Amino acid sequence: MYYVGIDLGGTNIAAGIVDESGNIVEGKSVPTKKERDFSEIIKDMAMLVTGMIDKTGISLKDIKGIGIGSPGTPNSKEGIIVYSNNIKVRNAPICTEMAKHIGLPVYLDNDANCAALAESYFGAAKGAKYSITITLGTGIGSGVILNKKIYSGFNFSAAELGHTLLIMDGEECSCGRRGCWEAYASATALIRQTREAVSKNMESYIYKLVDGDLNRINAKTAFDAADYGDETARKVVNQYIKYLAEGMINVINSFQPEILVIGGGISKQGDNLVNPLKKIIRKNIFCKEVSQTEIKIAQLGNDAGIVGAAMLAK
Amino acid sequence: MYYVGIDLGGTNIAAGIVDESGNIVEGKSVPTKKERDFSEIIKDMAMLVTGMIDKTGISLKDIKGIGIGSPGTPNSKEGIIVYSNNIKVRNAPICTEMAKHIGLPVYLDNDANCAALAESYFGAAKGAKYSITITLGTGIGSGVILNKKIYSGFNFSAAELGHTLLIMDGEECSCGRRGCWEAYASATALIRQTREAVSKNMESYIYKLVDGDLNRINAKTAFDAADYGDETARKVVNQYIKYLAEGMINVINSFQPEILVIGGGISKQGDNLVNPLKKIIRKNIFCKEVSQTEIKIAQLGNDAGIVGAAMLAK
Repeated sequence: MYYVGIDLGGTNIAAGIVDESGNIVEGKSVPTKKERDFSEIIKDMAMLVTGMIDKTGISLKDIKGIGIGSPGTPNSKEGIIVYSNNIKVRNAPICTEMAKHIGLPVYLDNDANCAALAESYFGAAKGAKYSITITLGTGIGSGVILNKKIYSGFNFSAAELGHTLLIMDGEECSCGRRGCWEAYASATALIRQTREAVSKNMESYIYKLVDGDLNRINAKTAFDAADYGDETARKVVNQYIKYLAEGMINVINSFQPEILVIGGGISKQGDNLVNPLKKIIRKNIFCKEVSQTEIKIAQLGNDAGIVGAAMLAK
Repeated sequence: MYYVGIDLGGTNIAAGIVDESGNIVEGKSVPTKKERDFSEIIKDMAMLVTGMIDKTGISLKDIKGIGIGSPGTPNSKEGIIVYSNNIKVRNAPICTEMAKHIGLPVYLDNDANCAALAESYFGAAKGAKYSITITLGTGIGSGVILNKKIYSGFNFSAAELGHTLLIMDGEECSCGRRGCWEAYASATALIRQTREAVSKNMESYIYKLVDGDLNRINAKTAFDAADYGDETARKVVNQYIKYLAEGMINVINSFQPEILVIGGGISKQGDNLVNPLKKIIRKNIFCKEVSQTEIKIAQLGNDAGIVGAAMLAK
């Protein structure tokens, strides 16, 4: 049996036909052009899917259904995107509309939840009954998997772990609140922290790395400069890891997942990231006398969105 | 059918026979005397239960089992208290030991989890698929109920919501970490905040309320003085409610329970507490465009421990 997954992003719509083992047997993407009418976006999604089905020659009866991972707050029961700040829609009945174009059942969930589902089925959290995947990007996405299913609360809008506090009334967060974890430990936050540090220490190697153009600083810059031995960068990285670890402790004390997976570009730092994280977590975790949550790096990379969305149809 | 519930506290062991409707048909308690050998505590627990059974004349075959709510970190699968700071035990096989005294199956869970289960079965969270009860006392206890069952993670030590951050590296917490919600929003924290405020404002009505003896300040004092119109007390109460609300927002953004129940002595403030809490929560919650978590006051009071423990056997 096959499953279609669609990762509906602010920049691109990426779709794939996924097999039972989580392989994308055929994939295709088009620009979202998110400012256009939503019906046009749905038409493009449908064309992507029919194009892939035609190309592979897979029979419609061998495809169990279509899953869509969308940004924002979807109501997965009703198949409606209630609200998204990224693609400008409100109360869009995306599943019904898609089903009009293709005779397959259509499912919907949040993109971060889909990434977590993918890691749970085929990635770093495979085999775990309870797992959580956090994705460090523009914000902090998060998905909680309990008994191999996405947990999204009574109103389908959990789990927004990026929007729990690190420092009450602290840094402004995109959600309107102050002091959220996301405002300290997302890739965006790390870039801000790197810029602030280098603008106070112009002799830092970071400055050379970006040829004096602070707009060229990305989430990798501080790690690269720290590897080179730059003191300013090392301080930025240590402080960032502290922010990340303290939020992860909150997640563990709340959910005690068997595996906590870190995804997003920053996770490519691998052991450079995981080892110091583990040290802080071990020190400050509430329950030291029980089995401890494993911290792992995500395995599915950018495919997680498509693969996880496809598994919604499983 | 009947169920026996035992609330094993640091001060008293309270036990009850509970019917299908959550009524305690017979109850009894003895002092824990927690410093003695744990086998003595178990003997007393067994005597309490057999005493109640004899007194009521309920047949053993009409009792489904015995549930024990204990402080600390129990392993509910193995029936072992892994660790408790309150009663000084480690890796105590409490269920096996109890079963040696009485021929009934014995179940175990954390006391805060039991309180949450009781509110879910018969109290403020009745009917909700997903609910959370927080208990404001010496610390902040918390229990997460998903699908009418206690959620306690892969290692049975969730959910310690009192030990998520309000202010990183802030006030010292009993768990060894700094800045936990419990260090700001427990009854203990409110008493500390009230003392600090009055010691800087000796003309406050609080000072009169306790006849100048700051040791007489309890978790009700600031609320009472604020009702009287005292400005110092009003500030303490407002700040406390802000601390409580911000932690509750973290809980809601993480779990999106249908109902979030507040228990413990402070919850007796009722609408004086709930209304200002709701105002802050509404303002800072992540998802404003979906159904919102209801905030309710616990209904079962001190019985919650016994009733919830009994429901472990259901």
